[in-house]
Amino acid sequence: MPKFTKPIRVYFSPDKKLHESLKNVLGFYPTNISLYKLAFRHSSAAQVIKKGVRDSNERLEFLGDSVIGMVVADYLFKKFPFKDEGFLTKMRSKMVSRQQHNQLAMKLGLNKFLEVNNDRQNNKSSSINGDAYEALIGAIYLDKGYVFAQQFILTRIVNVHIDMDEVETKEVDFKSKLIEWVQKEKKEFRFETLVDGASSDDKLYCIQLVVDNEAIGKAQHFSKKRAEQLVAELACGILEI
Amino acid sequence: MPKFTKPIRVYFSPDKKLHESLKNVLGFYPTNISLYKLAFRHSSAAQVIKKGVRDSNERLEFLGDSVIGMVVADYLFKKFPFKDEGFLTKMRSKMVSRQQHNQLAMKLGLNKFLEVNNDRQNNKSSSINGDAYEALIGAIYLDKGYVFAQQFILTRIVNVHIDMDEVETKEVDFKSKLIEWVQKEKKEFRFETLVDGASSDDKLYCIQLVVDNEAIGKAQHFSKKRAEQLVAELACGILEI
Repeated sequence: MPKFTKPIRVYFSPDKKLHESLKNVLGFYPTNISLYKLAFRHSSAAQVIKKGVRDSNERLEFLGDSVIGMVVADYLFKKFPFKDEGFLTKMRSKMVSRQQHNQLAMKLGLNKFLEVNNDRQNNKSSSINGDAYEALIGAIYLDKGYVFAQQFILTRIVNVHIDMDEVETKEVDFKSKLIEWVQKEKKEFRFETLVDGASSDDKLYCIQLVVDNEAIGKAQHFSKKRAEQLVAELACGILEI
Repeated sequence: MPKFTKPIRVYFSPDKKLHESLKNVLGFYPTNISLYKLAFRHSSAAQVIKKGVRDSNERLEFLGDSVIGMVVADYLFKKFPFKDEGFLTKMRSKMVSRQQHNQLAMKLGLNKFLEVNNDRQNNKSSSINGDAYEALIGAIYLDKGYVFAQQFILTRIVNVHIDMDEVETKEVDFKSKLIEWVQKEKKEFRFETLVDGASSDDKLYCIQLVVDNEAIGKAQHFSKKRAEQLVAELACGILEI
């Protein structure tokens, strides 16, 4: 990574504090600080800046998601020269899962930078932190370029926070994992369809997981199966399965 | 793009002909020609080089797919500064579809480089060309680096072969996709007209999709065809087609 001496602009920036906090977390001083502010702005706290456009982190999340996918693909390709593409694909999907990104965001402490409007955010989305992580990578990519973003992901994320042996052996099917757990613990559980995508306007299924008559969480997706997997993944996190 | 003078190694290469053909198609001389040979080797023509590993283009395809996804995400992000991430996601999925990649491969004339063993290739896969295109991008990325691969995709593919207006207006034909799937899976399906727009008060058609006697979902529209497309789109999500 390049030199980390404090740039003169930081001394005179109105966002001096944010510059310093980000330096502590990321290991470098941002050049264009507004990109990072945007990366931490959840849609609930966003303003409409133009008809149909809001200044939330969702566009950066789209970009960052691609950057991470590319960097991880390159990393796996070189790390496992004798594994086939099926193995690489599986490994990547585990390394870039929503759960993984949420965990990484917490490890980096991104939650303290988040700009969220709790009044407007009705459905407590479980992926706010992971989304901000992806948006942050998008911001780093735009601010510093591909090679810098790649170095950041490899040296400060993959090498430090990801245990590759654990990823390799980790289960992905969260629903099976959950069912195994409830059977072992002799608990009762059910998936409740709160919104049936087939008849709802936006075609989204909303599935709630109930364990021993206690609602654990809910998830939305266009596919009912996928929504069940998502809420199962969420529950595995909450119940520490 | 960098200079295109003929490098000395080409004069002495046993693959001089391939070097020249690739120069004609790609616009540059490859540095590591073996990567390009690998990119054009379909799994049917591959040899086992180590237990469980074959020297086919599938690993390069995995890598190239990520490179294309990243380059296209970056391109769309900058081309459409006022569009939301839903629009960007849709555009990208149209730009990197199997159909699109097959077409690009044919336009570049990659089929004449392909190494396929027709005896061993039983199921005539329709994506051989598109897969080779993805693998070629993976080879360019490894051979020349990210920035070069990005420049190649933008200047020699996107700017020349992709009509962005056409991509933007193109509808994904979910009905064809669904029909293809039910035929492959040997299932029965039908569209049921629950409400006939021609005779109903609000002129809305309500169409229900039934697969193997199970109602998958329904959709409404003033146009019967559009309602069928909508319910097919919904089904593609639910059935994970």
